[in-house]
Amino acid sequence: MKNVKHAKCVKCGKIYEAVPNLTSCSCGGILDIVYDYDYIRTVLTKEKLAARRDNSMWRYRELLPVEETTENTPLRVGWSPLYEADTLAKQLGIKKLYVKDDGINPTASLKDRASAMAVAKAREAGAEVIACSSTGNAASSLAGNAAAAGLRTYIFVPSRAPKGKVAQLMTFGATVISVQGSYEETFELSKAAIDRWGWYNRNAAINPYLSEGKKTVSLEIMEQLGWEVPDYIAISVGDGCTIAGLWKGLKDLYAIGFIDKLPRLISAQAEGCCPLNRAIETGGDWKPMEENTLADSIAVGVPRNADKALMAIRESNGLVVNVSDEEIMAAQKLLGRTCGVFGEPAGVTGAAGLKKLCGEGKIPADATVVSVVTGNGLKDVANAIAACGEPISIPGDMDRLLRAFEENGIVVE
Amino acid sequence: MKNVKHAKCVKCGKIYEAVPNLTSCSCGGILDIVYDYDYIRTVLTKEKLAARRDNSMWRYRELLPVEETTENTPLRVGWSPLYEADTLAKQLGIKKLYVKDDGINPTASLKDRASAMAVAKAREAGAEVIACSSTGNAASSLAGNAAAAGLRTYIFVPSRAPKGKVAQLMTFGATVISVQGSYEETFELSKAAIDRWGWYNRNAAINPYLSEGKKTVSLEIMEQLGWEVPDYIAISVGDGCTIAGLWKGLKDLYAIGFIDKLPRLISAQAEGCCPLNRAIETGGDWKPMEENTLADSIAVGVPRNADKALMAIRESNGLVVNVSDEEIMAAQKLLGRTCGVFGEPAGVTGAAGLKKLCGEGKIPADATVVSVVTGNGLKDVANAIAACGEPISIPGDMDRLLRAFEENGIVVE
Repeated sequence: MKNVKHAKCVKCGKIYEAVPNLTSCSCGGILDIVYDYDYIRTVLTKEKLAARRDNSMWRYRELLPVEETTENTPLRVGWSPLYEADTLAKQLGIKKLYVKDDGINPTASLKDRASAMAVAKAREAGAEVIACSSTGNAASSLAGNAAAAGLRTYIFVPSRAPKGKVAQLMTFGATVISVQGSYEETFELSKAAIDRWGWYNRNAAINPYLSEGKKTVSLEIMEQLGWEVPDYIAISVGDGCTIAGLWKGLKDLYAIGFIDKLPRLISAQAEGCCPLNRAIETGGDWKPMEENTLADSIAVGVPRNADKALMAIRESNGLVVNVSDEEIMAAQKLLGRTCGVFGEPAGVTGAAGLKKLCGEGKIPADATVVSVVTGNGLKDVANAIAACGEPISIPGDMDRLLRAFEENGIVVE
Repeated sequence: MKNVKHAKCVKCGKIYEAVPNLTSCSCGGILDIVYDYDYIRTVLTKEKLAARRDNSMWRYRELLPVEETTENTPLRVGWSPLYEADTLAKQLGIKKLYVKDDGINPTASLKDRASAMAVAKAREAGAEVIACSSTGNAASSLAGNAAAAGLRTYIFVPSRAPKGKVAQLMTFGATVISVQGSYEETFELSKAAIDRWGWYNRNAAINPYLSEGKKTVSLEIMEQLGWEVPDYIAISVGDGCTIAGLWKGLKDLYAIGFIDKLPRLISAQAEGCCPLNRAIETGGDWKPMEENTLADSIAVGVPRNADKALMAIRESNGLVVNVSDEEIMAAQKLLGRTCGVFGEPAGVTGAAGLKKLCGEGKIPADATVVSVVTGNGLKDVANAIAACGEPISIPGDMDRLLRAFEENGIVVE
């Protein structure tokens, strides 16, 4: 990898050679991939990118930690749409809003970006089995991306994982272990099993390559905006890996001169599980919390990537905001009705946080904001139906239709 | 529309001006949009297409029946991935297989192509409300595409529609009427309501523009294959509109000289509901059937677009194949495990049919085949879980994991 110098511990600064099966530092700290930006500047230009027909995350290979000879992974991950959400921007009282719908990825979440990277690196490592623990999306994305590449998977999910995600796992042929306990207990069991059997490790807080996959979401946002930097990017935060990846992509682009400033991040967590935001608010260390929210993907009481996530929020002079489950489900409806985007609860938590901050007058009226939707609402249908209610149910009869409209106060124009 | 001559009844040949709110012929026949291919040849070349950055169905505007001034619709519909499925091709004993995953569309089905067209034409007609009846996917795609465009929707679904599709509808803010009855009864009630209130009609078998949206799936397949025509294209068939649209796109490309031959279509229906395939097999007219399959999207006992569908299958010298629900669910697993593609039951029925035909020796070993997956498996999680089973469920403990592996006959390498 001519573009990669090495990996470096974010805690103690120790340097590691960037071998494919890197895990954490001996001090327990998380590693960060360090690039040779001078080299990258010589091989990547905006014009070169603009001419590329590859509409997947692999269009950014010069900024990704893979060998030049490593094949692109089979599923088409990334290059998700960035929608102009003018109606919603008006409602929120801001100048411009863009919604990045990462729910259209092959397994319907942003996590496909990390899983595609895991598959690429597992192949470099010569591995045939990959394993992870996950609240659900990392799991289903790994199972799908690995199946397409002919690799086997062992996957650990907490028993609360919604049915949609479990159905994906089973269909993709993963060996799935549903752990009767918290995400923390799930993570620990996966770790013990990975240690025991030597599987390739796709735990995003251990394998430093994965947030490099996730960072492609911000590379895309910036290319899709014509390199015009927004004022804020809002995203939901659980384990911390996604916001860390988002920030890494932005810093990469800044380092190679593709953008001339950096946006402020908006870290949105659920009120019932917000250890990272609480650390920012109190200025102290993070402390474990209960996992008390229906936004299952970000119900992470012991965030495994706290260091990188807190660094990202602080470096960006970011805002933190905690939202209730009601605010999350209201944001799901709001995005559906104004943008035609159906996000899962955790997927719309960034938008819920943005809405709350706008309501509190914390976002200037002339701001341009990007809100990332990290997963598709079809993954968790039960909560959507609970929030939206059931449809009108009648026999196929016009009189019954008229009566139903009247009873439901529907005036047809 | 310089590229469109007029609409013509497929039954009696009567000609209609191509106004935006076209419905059926006075004789009851379905209309077909007739293009000026000589004109289109002067404005569209393969090179022009290749240079286009628009990775949505609107990249084919010269072949679509919209006014030059009509805006592209907001959601990014189309340009779904076409995967090389080498492992599966080997298993099926054919030379080459491609899988077109249309489940990655914004609302997760091929129907987005028709709904985007409906929104474009409704805007041309100055309509503010669109209505349809649907087994589910047309409904959710209309609700999503209309919401993004600021239009309101009234939607009629049979009460058997899976929860995922209903959740989408409710989130997108549609007024949803769940009809306690068959698809036929649902269709009739929607028709009566549309007549009564004059809503813009998105019933694909009445509005002739909709299969023109659907045809973009074959325009894409051919462009993605570099205009190399496959021997067969396999697709599931319900109402008949989708296979009719698929065929129309191929004939368009043939008419403008982009391809020099036409593939044979494979029409796959469920054994429990196969009125169109039965008509082909018997050589007679189609007759109504019960709607007896779990593949809800194609459980259409009274196909509304029989004329165009039968014509497409016959003109292409097509094959028909009926599959059991067990064969459908086996195909869902097979696609998941070999391709990382999770399709809904109706979505994988084309693949199930292809598998069956290969098993019967009806597809030559040197054939190149495209199988279209028309919808995402997340729309119908209940059936997927019933077919795949539940995961291993244990507390977070290594001893329990070892015991569970042993009990389930899992040998870890």
